[in-house]
Formats: sequence, C-alpha cells, structure tokens
Amino acid sequence: MWLIFVILRNFVSKIITNFIPNTFMAKDLSTREENYSKWYNDIVQQAGLAENSAVRGCMVIKPYGYAIWEKMQAALDKMFKDTGHSNAYFPIFIPKSFFSKEASHVEGFAKECAVVTHYRLKNNPDGSGVVVDPDAKLEEELIIRPTSETIIWDTYRGWVQSYRDLPILINQWANVVRWEMRPRMFLRTAEFLWQEGHTAHATEKEAIEEAGRMLEVYADFAQNFMAIPVLKGAKSANERFAGALETFCIEALMQDGKALQAGTSHFLGQNFAKAFDVKFTSAEGKLDYVWATSWGVSTRLIGALIMAHSDDKGLVLPPKLAPIQVVIVPIYNNLEQQQLVIQKAKAIKEMLVAHNISVKLDDSDNYKPGWKFNEYELKGVPLRIAIGPRDVENGTLEIARRDTMAKETFSEDGLVENINRLLIEIQENLYRKALNFRESNTTQADTWDEFVDILDNKGGFVLAHWDATPETEEKIKELTKATIRCIPLENKKVDGVCIFSGKPSSQRVVFARAY
Amino acid sequence: MWLIFVILRNFVSKIITNFIPNTFMAKDLSTREENYSKWYNDIVQQAGLAENSAVRGCMVIKPYGYAIWEKMQAALDKMFKDTGHSNAYFPIFIPKSFFSKEASHVEGFAKECAVVTHYRLKNNPDGSGVVVDPDAKLEEELIIRPTSETIIWDTYRGWVQSYRDLPILINQWANVVRWEMRPRMFLRTAEFLWQEGHTAHATEKEAIEEAGRMLEVYADFAQNFMAIPVLKGAKSANERFAGALETFCIEALMQDGKALQAGTSHFLGQNFAKAFDVKFTSAEGKLDYVWATSWGVSTRLIGALIMAHSDDKGLVLPPKLAPIQVVIVPIYNNLEQQQLVIQKAKAIKEMLVAHNISVKLDDSDNYKPGWKFNEYELKGVPLRIAIGPRDVENGTLEIARRDTMAKETFSEDGLVENINRLLIEIQENLYRKALNFRESNTTQADTWDEFVDILDNKGGFVLAHWDATPETEEKIKELTKATIRCIPLENKKVDGVCIFSGKPSSQRVVFARAY
Repeated sequence: MWLIFVILRNFVSKIITNFIPNTFMAKDLSTREENYSKWYNDIVQQAGLAENSAVRGCMVIKPYGYAIWEKMQAALDKMFKDTGHSNAYFPIFIPKSFFSKEASHVEGFAKECAVVTHYRLKNNPDGSGVVVDPDAKLEEELIIRPTSETIIWDTYRGWVQSYRDLPILINQWANVVRWEMRPRMFLRTAEFLWQEGHTAHATEKEAIEEAGRMLEVYADFAQNFMAIPVLKGAKSANERFAGALETFCIEALMQDGKALQAGTSHFLGQNFAKAFDVKFTSAEGKLDYVWATSWGVSTRLIGALIMAHSDDKGLVLPPKLAPIQVVIVPIYNNLEQQQLVIQKAKAIKEMLVAHNISVKLDDSDNYKPGWKFNEYELKGVPLRIAIGPRDVENGTLEIARRDTMAKETFSEDGLVENINRLLIEIQENLYRKALNFRESNTTQADTWDEFVDILDNKGGFVLAHWDATPETEEKIKELTKATIRCIPLENKKVDGVCIFSGKPSSQRVVFARAY
Repeated sequence: MWLIFVILRNFVSKIITNFIPNTFMAKDLSTREENYSKWYNDIVQQAGLAENSAVRGCMVIKPYGYAIWEKMQAALDKMFKDTGHSNAYFPIFIPKSFFSKEASHVEGFAKECAVVTHYRLKNNPDGSGVVVDPDAKLEEELIIRPTSETIIWDTYRGWVQSYRDLPILINQWANVVRWEMRPRMFLRTAEFLWQEGHTAHATEKEAIEEAGRMLEVYADFAQNFMAIPVLKGAKSANERFAGALETFCIEALMQDGKALQAGTSHFLGQNFAKAFDVKFTSAEGKLDYVWATSWGVSTRLIGALIMAHSDDKGLVLPPKLAPIQVVIVPIYNNLEQQQLVIQKAKAIKEMLVAHNISVKLDDSDNYKPGWKFNEYELKGVPLRIAIGPRDVENGTLEIARRDTMAKETFSEDGLVENINRLLIEIQENLYRKALNFRESNTTQADTWDEFVDILDNKGGFVLAHWDATPETEEKIKELTKATIRCIPLENKKVDGVCIFSGKPSSQRVVFARAY
C-alpha cells in the first residue's frame, strides 16, 4: 500500500512537471565543467543574489543575497562582541594627505581610489541638466576610504593618554571603495561591504595576541558557519598588507582548484601610531607609541560560499547561513485539495517557526510545483517539504535535501526533531565534502616540473619548498601565476630545497593560483 | 536601625565623594538655561556619543553613541520586516545624469553633494606624497548618494514586467552625504547613517497606504521606543520632498521649544517610474507606470533623543534604547570589603543578564564611587545599583533612577521583577513628561501679534489658521523663521482667517521654529 502511494505520488509529480509550459521551466545554468566562471555568474544572477548596476564595478546586492550577508553579520558581530569589541563609525572621507603619512601604506596600497574634488552641482546654463560647480572645489581632495587605518588612528590620538585608556577594541561595519579594473560580483567590486576591526594596545605582545585571536574567530566562522575548511597562516612579506609587520590570513579552496583569501588580520606594530603621533604613558610612567592591529572580512565571503558548495543545479547553502532553511511546497490538483493542503502547510510552518527554523511557504499559484522545486534548488534552500492531499490524509510529508538531493517520506510526528537533525547533518556534510575536496586537492611538489604540472593539470594547494626570498616568490608568480597563499601557523620544519632556485629551505609553504 | 543604616551609608558615600580629587570630578556641563546649544554639544561629547572628525562636517560616532544606533536599528529593522520588507544594498555612486531625469527632484534637491571626478592617485613627482592622477578623470562624474531614488528606480526597471512582480518592498541601511554648510552633530552632518525604504506598487491606492503604514511605524517607534510623542501629518507643498506628491512626517518638540522632523514617508506617485521608464502589465493586460513610495529616518534621531529627555546632569535615555540599562557600582573601603562586594555584584549582574537586562558592572578601581555615579548619570543609564558591605550583610541594595534621581533601598528578593518594573516605569514616565511638555507648549494663535509673541517668548508648536498658499507660508517664514511643521492627519476642519493674510482658512496648521 505504502509503496503504491509513493509510486503514485512520483507519477503525479511527473505529470505535473510535464504540463508546465517551457517558459516556466528552470532557467538555464552553465555547468562548472563547461564554464566555471559563467556558472558562477549565472548562480549569482539567477538565484537572485546580486546584479551589475549602472555604475561600472558596483553591484546591487539583491534581497536574497543581502539576507545571507545579514546572517553573516549577525554571527560575526556576536563573535566580535563576545571577544570584547564594540562597534563605532568613522567618516567615509579621508583627507588625501593622510595617505602620505604612513610611508609603506601609501606605497603599497593600491592607488585606485574614488576621489572627491567638488562639493556642489549647479544647473547647466544651457538647460541640459546639472554640471559640477567649478566654484565648489575642495581645498584638499577627499578619498573615499579604501580602508580606514588613517582616519581611525588620527582619531585615536585624542582618545589615548595613559595605559588606562588601552586597549581600544573597535569594529566598524562599513562600505569601502577600491577602483577595481576587473570587477567580479562579490569577489572584486569597486564598492563592497565589510567590517574592519581596529585595535590599540599597550604592548606588542597584546597586539600580536589580538591579531591571532581574530584570525581564530575568522577560522571558526568559516568552518562552523560557512562550512568551509580554511588554512590559517601568515603571508609572505610580498603579500602583506601595506603598513603591516605581519599579515595573518585564512585561505579557502574553491571547486575550480583556485584559492580564495577569505579574511585577514594584521599586526601593524607601531607604524600607524608613529604616523599619527598616538602615544601613551605606561604604568611605569614611560611615554611610548601605541601598538595596533586591524582585521577584516567582506561581502567577498558570499563569493566564497557560492563557489565552495554549489553544484550544477545552483546554489547550495549551509543551513546556518541560509535565509530560508526550509521551503514548503504544497501539491494539489483542485480547489478542495488546495485548501486542505495549504491549511496543513500553514500549521507545519507555524510549528517550525516556533522552533526558530526559517521557513518559507510558497503557496503562490502562479507556478507549478515542478517550477518551485527547481527554483528553490537554484536558491540553495537546504530542505524542501512537499505536501500533497495523500500526505494530509496519512500524516506524512516528503523531505528533500538540497546537498544530496535525497528524498524521504517522514511522519509528521517528531518533525521538528527530524528537521533539526537534517539541518545539522547538511551543515556537517557540506563541511566534510569541502574538507575532502581540499585534502584531495592538496599536493606536495618536489621539483619545478611537478609544481608546474600540478598547477596546470590538477590545481589546488601545492605544498613546496621555497628559499624564503621575495625574488623567487616574484619569479614563480610571473612564470606560473601562482602565489604563496600562506605559511601555515605552526608549520612543520623540514629541510629541503627550493623548487625554483634549488637553494636550501626549512619548510614547505602553500602555493596556489588564486582569486 | 534601618534608618541609622541608611543615614550612615549616605554619610559614607558623601565622605567618599569628598575625597575624590578635582581632576576626577564630573566634567563641566553647560545648563540648558545658560546655553542650550552648548549644553547639547557638551552632552554629545562628554557622554561619549560622538565627536567631530578631521573632515569638515563629518563626525565620528563613538561606541556608546553607536550602541544607541544599533538598538534603534534592531527595533526598526524588526518593524520593517514585520510589515513585509526586505533589506538590500544599492551602490553609493549615482551617475550625475541620473539627477536630471526627474525634473522636480533635481530642482528641489539640495545641490550640495560630494562629487567624485577621478579614480586614481599617483605619487607626486616632487616626492611630497600623492596627487590626483589627471589621466584618471571619469567620463561622467559620480555623485555620492544624498538619497537613492534615482539609482534604485534605474534598477527596478529590470525587476518589473508584470503586476506579479509587484509590490517591491525594499529597505536599505546606508550612509548618505549632503554637503551641509552649518553642520551639527547628529542633527545635520555631511555624512550620516540612515535607512531608506523604496517601494513599488501596482496602484496609487496601495502606494498611499504604504506611505501611511510606514508613517505609523515611525510614530510607533518614536513613541514606544524613544518615548517621544510625535505629531503625524502631511507637509505643505513648500516643504515636500523633491519629487514627491505628498510628504508625510512625524514632528517632535524639543525642550527649547523648537520642532524637529524625526522621520518622513513620501508618496512619489509615478514620477520616478516615468523618469526611469518602469512600466508593468496589469492583471487586465494594460501597460502602466509603477507607483512609488520612499521613507527614511537617520542618526538624527539620536539628536532628538538627547534633546527630548536629557537634563542638566547629562543624558537621559529611555530603557528600551539604553545600551546599558543597569549599572552596578560596588562601594568598599578596604580589600576585604572589595572582594565581598564585588563577588555579590557579579552574582547580581549574572542574574539580571540571564533575564535579558543589559548590565554593566563597573568594578574598576581607578575611580571612586562618586565619580562613577556622576559618570553614569552623564551617560543616562536608567538605573544604578549601589552595593556596599552592609548591603551584602543585609541582603539589600540601593537603586537610583536616572529620570527622577530618586533612590530607594530594595531587598535582593524579587530584584529582577523590581528592576523590570522600574525600567517600564522610567520608559512610561519619560514619555509622559515629554507629552506634558508638548501639551503645555502647544498654543493656539488667532492674530499675527499673538503668533509672533508666542514664537518669541514661549516657543513650541503654534496652531494657527493659514490661507493655504505657498506665498503666505514663505512670507511667514521670512518674517518669523517659523515653518509649517505639518498639517495633522485627520485635522479638525474649522473655519477661520489666516493669521497673516486675513483670508479664509478651513483648518489650523502646526507652525514652529525648527531644527
């Protein structure tokens, strides 16, 4: 009896799908195999995450994409507060001269910035709209923050006199602008959203500890919320943030074998304190410069999330960051069934919502169930519940997992427990899959030929000896486009020879081509 | 026995206060009477809410001020979502030509904008830092959004084909820039933080309903979270948002008798849809332009909050928006007492935190209790708990209310209930006080002399007849600096004559001098 019911349902569901006109069918998505980069763009657009705007390099983050960012913000913000940080807000404008104050910052930092030169428009005398008023030229140009170290350290000067005023543990959620020549949605846009932590400390030790603590927070977030395993390490001197003594990072591996830097935490030494004259009197009465860190993650994480888990059917989201964790699709053939099924669906939704599960009931009658199935697969909703009239009769429902695409029929009894269990399973399964992928795409190379061969034919992280010189690093980058992603924390010391120069090396470092 | 104890404690507390060196005494605050405007600035700075930055007209919102904004955001965001809205994010840059597309928008909107003309800096050949790279001039200048109708309606064009795509109910939390000539912290700054809702509808009726609904949300928030009574009304044509057919507003009264516009909700008709060619096919197959609303509140609300409730001792915050609802100050004279009292204070903090009360235990030993009392009065913390060794012995504690400055000794038993009751009482008391103030500062004027006399000598809202012409409104503004704050919703129709022109009038409108 049971079997007949299930067969019948699948049959009915097929019929329904067959009757949907073509215009309502799932949108066309490139596959990863065909064109990875187009597959990525297709998902961003067709899942309703973002789109390009009228302004070159700037994207519109659409409600569904922004909802993922809100989930990320909520989780990170709590982690920042739990580690003692407060939020604040600093001006978006930075006087041009500030950039010249910290020599390596201005040298190393990309000069592609948005520059404000005027503060007024006026009507064009010829009646053709508005023009910039030449009389409203700023004495000093203002730069839209590409990052806020300079304006923040200019402010901290007024906040610090004694060791009692330290530490300052502040974070800012903000938009920043870096004029990107080759923009890509989420991964590299002219304007992007991020958080930037800026802390001030009385000792070098405390500042280094802080940079390490925030790296751990980022790694924890990547692994436990995004379900993405990350390597924690330090950047080589070449790849350091301009003005930092040490840049720590988390590096993730995408499905095309390219690395993605997912977050950075910088130990800035006393560089910005010296540039902006921020001194304090220690407990011993000694005057010294303040020690600094800064750390940030951005909407780029959404790009990482998409590329780490999604498949050829669309987005796959880890339950902890999914705006909709469960979608309910009612299935019916006539008005009587519709009422019956939707009533039940509403009751189930209410029950789940009462247990803090994010649920969408899609009871719209514009689209057939088959279209909805495709749509929510495309949008990466972790669980889909389908309810038909027979389910109502039998007290059952069908649950489909987005990660494995497996379907199973469950009794209504114990539904909340089952849903919660499945959400945890999906979260863990995605992490495990991504970890397996990374492990099978992490390879040791001992010769130059091996190194090049792996990069060209397999991709992924390549562990190789390096002679620790910037020149070699630069050469390798020129020849292969691979960069040192990081020198892992607590890296094993092993003697070897540099794959490029043949000079002695004390450890393997992690190379990859990267976003 | 009890009385002796209380007297003794007050005595000890006085002694402690007397021994605090002058440098640790409360900072000097102007009084409202002396200099209202300086009093406001003193509170903003000394309570640690904000300070001026190196960039003219831009402020730094400090952690304590930003925490108030976070509380406001959380409450408003929930209200927006409960009324069906989603958040999204649109670019900060708007191509200059967009402003010319909606004629009244460009005419009426302040042209004081930040204009981006270049996208790159370069090293100055003379070695003196960086200069703007003249080769990196933008073809079309970009304006930093002063408001986002234009860029958003340019985007909506791609989102709407049929009535099925409507309504679009979107909100954005963002920074905006309006180059203010006379900036004032929170009230008028070049850059400020706000939310802007932008909705699109199939019918005029729906759009008007939406504008009304959001006005109600703002009024609800002002009254129930900010404890500020507001008048709900429509703006006169002169005071309307540039591009709107109708601007609804909430108007609050500050303690100096000046009005403050606390939020606006605009019915934009089809103006932006026409300017950006956003059409849809109705259910009847007819092609029509989409109907629009927009609505916003900003960090200006923090200015309103300060001015509505604070007193000559500093900030007074309604409990629902206070970052710290309860501060615990331990009182002790020696190490043994210190340990005893702080242990108890920690236990009390834990208990309150477990009941979702925001608590700060200030157990720092840099400052004496008297200094701390002043500090948290200045910061407007609604309730202060003082615990001394005798309290620990007796199972009591002293609670002081910030609004009335009343102190009372409570038993530890039932503390959570008492604190919750007191927080509600303070919230209600602040609202009642503000309402009483507004009622005693709302006056009818029937002649011009009366009108001018009230404005000059009493201030507040003045209810007066007006002949409904922009010319009269303009004249009154020129002569008295008073503007029509609003025409209250569901205003009583009463025949009368205009106080200025003597012409017939059908209703009284609300005049005031305003921020």
